[in-house]
Amino acid sequence: MSFDPASLKYDANGLIPCIAQDPVSGEVLMMAWMNAEAVARTLETGRVTYWSRSRAAFWVKGETSGHVQRLVELRVDCDRDCLLALVEQEGPACHTNRRSCFYTAVRDGGEVVLSAPMA
Amino acid sequence: MSFDPASLKYDANGLIPCIAQDPVSGEVLMMAWMNAEAVARTLETGRVTYWSRSRAAFWVKGETSGHVQRLVELRVDCDRDCLLALVEQEGPACHTNRRSCFYTAVRDGGEVVLSAPMA
Repeated sequence: MSFDPASLKYDANGLIPCIAQDPVSGEVLMMAWMNAEAVARTLETGRVTYWSRSRAAFWVKGETSGHVQRLVELRVDCDRDCLLALVEQEGPACHTNRRSCFYTAVRDGGEVVLSAPMA
Repeated sequence: MSFDPASLKYDANGLIPCIAQDPVSGEVLMMAWMNAEAVARTLETGRVTYWSRSRAAFWVKGETSGHVQRLVELRVDCDRDCLLALVEQEGPACHTNRRSCFYTAVRDGGEVVLSAPMA
């Protein structure tokens, strides 16, 4: 069965969430959004490309920071309304310079910061 | 700093995406949605509780199927608009009876099913 980005289920804004994961460590790096064109560009170029909701523009991850994501494999969930991108992440994925955006844990009713920005 | 579910950023429908991950294998199991009350219930009970958009009701994962998710740790991302729940998953997370909902890969322009339903 051939893959067509139009076959995915997008929300009212034409977007689908995409989780980025390091397939070697298993670490969940970030979650961002794609539209159908971003999905197509990601597959065509091998460079993970999101849709920036704040800038209303394509966001080739790492284009300005150098912290690129090379696509290893794109996966689709059972409902076709969420994507999982296995990626080779160059440096930090997070704009705070941490490897993962999920660096805050809820423990004993409080928040704990798990990692420091990368040097 | 104490954690308040109201401090998270919810979308126009009052929902926040939550990624469920097996912290031992690293496998991303599923993504579903929570509202502030579902976040609070998840933390209070240790049973991962989503908001079912299709049923417009709380969804205590596994309540009918037995495929419960016990919360190991809840994490918040840098923008406070996405959650990562580390969970002990009983059996399959997916309604298709697969361990993970992300069982379809896009390879060479086509779709490949990576796993069979659990016995």
